[in-house]
Amino acid sequence: MMAEEFKVTPWEVKGKIDYDKLVKEFGVQPLEKLPKSFYDEVLFRRGMIFAHRGLGQIISAIEHKKPFVMMTGLMPTGKFHLGHMILARQMIFYQKLGAKIYICVADVEAYNARGQSLEESRQNAIEEYILNYVALGLKPENCVIYFQSERSNDAKKANAYYRLQNLLARHATFNEFKAVYGEITPGKMISALLQASDMLHPQLREFEGPIPVVVPVGIDQDPHIRLARDMSSRIKMHNVSFKELSSTYHTFLPGLNGGGKMSSSDQTSFVALTDTPEDAAKKVKKYAFSGGKDTIDEHRRFGGNPDIDVSYQWLRVFEEDDKVLKKIYDDYKSGVLLSGELKNLLIVKLSAFLTEHQKRRESAKKSLDVFMKKVQ
Amino acid sequence: MMAEEFKVTPWEVKGKIDYDKLVKEFGVQPLEKLPKSFYDEVLFRRGMIFAHRGLGQIISAIEHKKPFVMMTGLMPTGKFHLGHMILARQMIFYQKLGAKIYICVADVEAYNARGQSLEESRQNAIEEYILNYVALGLKPENCVIYFQSERSNDAKKANAYYRLQNLLARHATFNEFKAVYGEITPGKMISALLQASDMLHPQLREFEGPIPVVVPVGIDQDPHIRLARDMSSRIKMHNVSFKELSSTYHTFLPGLNGGGKMSSSDQTSFVALTDTPEDAAKKVKKYAFSGGKDTIDEHRRFGGNPDIDVSYQWLRVFEEDDKVLKKIYDDYKSGVLLSGELKNLLIVKLSAFLTEHQKRRESAKKSLDVFMKKVQ
Repeated sequence: MMAEEFKVTPWEVKGKIDYDKLVKEFGVQPLEKLPKSFYDEVLFRRGMIFAHRGLGQIISAIEHKKPFVMMTGLMPTGKFHLGHMILARQMIFYQKLGAKIYICVADVEAYNARGQSLEESRQNAIEEYILNYVALGLKPENCVIYFQSERSNDAKKANAYYRLQNLLARHATFNEFKAVYGEITPGKMISALLQASDMLHPQLREFEGPIPVVVPVGIDQDPHIRLARDMSSRIKMHNVSFKELSSTYHTFLPGLNGGGKMSSSDQTSFVALTDTPEDAAKKVKKYAFSGGKDTIDEHRRFGGNPDIDVSYQWLRVFEEDDKVLKKIYDDYKSGVLLSGELKNLLIVKLSAFLTEHQKRRESAKKSLDVFMKKVQ
Repeated sequence: MMAEEFKVTPWEVKGKIDYDKLVKEFGVQPLEKLPKSFYDEVLFRRGMIFAHRGLGQIISAIEHKKPFVMMTGLMPTGKFHLGHMILARQMIFYQKLGAKIYICVADVEAYNARGQSLEESRQNAIEEYILNYVALGLKPENCVIYFQSERSNDAKKANAYYRLQNLLARHATFNEFKAVYGEITPGKMISALLQASDMLHPQLREFEGPIPVVVPVGIDQDPHIRLARDMSSRIKMHNVSFKELSSTYHTFLPGLNGGGKMSSSDQTSFVALTDTPEDAAKKVKKYAFSGGKDTIDEHRRFGGNPDIDVSYQWLRVFEEDDKVLKKIYDDYKSGVLLSGELKNLLIVKLSAFLTEHQKRRESAKKSLDVFMKKVQ
């Protein structure tokens, strides 16, 4: 099979992605030698989080029980799907390790990029994203969730956050924005500056003061991280100095239909966390891209390719047992396991997960008001 | 004498300005038929405020004793000079007519455009601008002064002001910004959006709600007004609707050296309100551009040109008595009054003003802390 061409920019991900090549191109560091606790999380254990910038200071904070922040954002549009879970699991992982969690609802960006009203964004953020975070295990303790359009009900904090956005503008050129965003509009530019403030403001004295901050992202988002790091190194404000941002990079959970990244705008691509187990099973059967051969005979003789098989890729997240996963890999590769059988293994895991998750989601609904009061 | 070429853009004013031509080019309305109270102010009486957009709703508010806002900004760099007084007099004029006065200290713009720190801007704004406003008669009642970098100590207001800045970005194109600002940078663009929020935010429900707002500016600033008006007509926000901005346009007080507009970056151009009467007199004698002839003989025979004479132009502001001013005009034109004599008439008026003003400034210093507490 010929190597497929791939493309990874903040605004487009397509093709079969060569992550090793991206590590070199973007100049990020491969992830090696993590503390033991990291390997409890399959995303780290199985190399789905595969690269970083400056994670050393985060590891050091964890080892010395010093405070640190995990910062992330959510775009409050569309359904919350399995792809979003990759990030949600990292929130919960870092929260257990002692991080203060900052979650930004990018409602200003949703308005400027897609014309979505702030009210719609608020509703979508709470019902789709935050409710699922809670069901997945996010705790209100040491967690802050805010909206870009309304940073804080503490005026000192609100002023400080937007002040940083405004002053950062001096410290980047148009060409830098174009390199990150391609075609640029005033709306994209001001959203980009707000996003940089999102990543950097936890270190202002009105918030935590200088502190290690880790931003976990998909590798396509690295240009945003670089720009924020560059701006923070250039800005000189009274009483402000930033520790360099840390970041980690995860692979994309592929969409059902194969290459690229799961997208909520494509029905043949995603499974939502609110899909019934039956609907999810149907989607997997109908759309999941297979690494198997065209006929059973050929498959038995030559084996399948788990590395491009979507069901196998998803099982890497849902099958916690390394030995079981390895057996699936080997059996598929040798041709012992057929594509339909592999799909069924995924469906069993996925159904169990969705059933359990949707129960938790119902209980989360009851405590959501209390949760929001604690985190806002 | 040939007609000099002139140029008026928000970033450059030069040459002998043909205001009638500008009225047509910019599509603003000439000022006619004002209520009597307006003619108490020489700037209106003598046509130095000469055009407007939508002033009808302000006049109507004044006549029906309805609330309205006068909004203006100050760039906290350099010395406060006679040119700045043109705007300060309008603040005090509208305040007496019942307006709520909003004054914005453009410290974010000073940072982005000139790299001036927020601390320097704060000090310059208070010592140069606000102190002089108070000495000129600005009262703390019904007056709000705020810094762009720290809008309010009421979180609802701070969030609302910056939210408007962020959402306005969707409603203008890069080309519109370029038309207003020429060469554009991220810093200029974000400052421009903040300036639009400065002009429009008094109408948010967190502030006054929809209300007539007048922004008095030099005619060179009209493109800013137009852009803010355009954006406000395009934005659709829940619970927000804007009355169209009103504006008035004033001529520039010419710099000592003649054409264009007084500039604090040119020593041969400005007289500061903190210059001693002696220093001011020296500057006038040395630099004031004269409309007189080269020799006394010629001047006596052909007369001078008051319309280009800086001393006469300044007397239009400092000589309140219309009859006296008319006599000066006629005498200069006929050659009865010599250029040196005209300069002396200005020096007498200017000295009296500066002496009195500097006394008031000393008393204003004592009450400044109280004043700032009331207006912030």
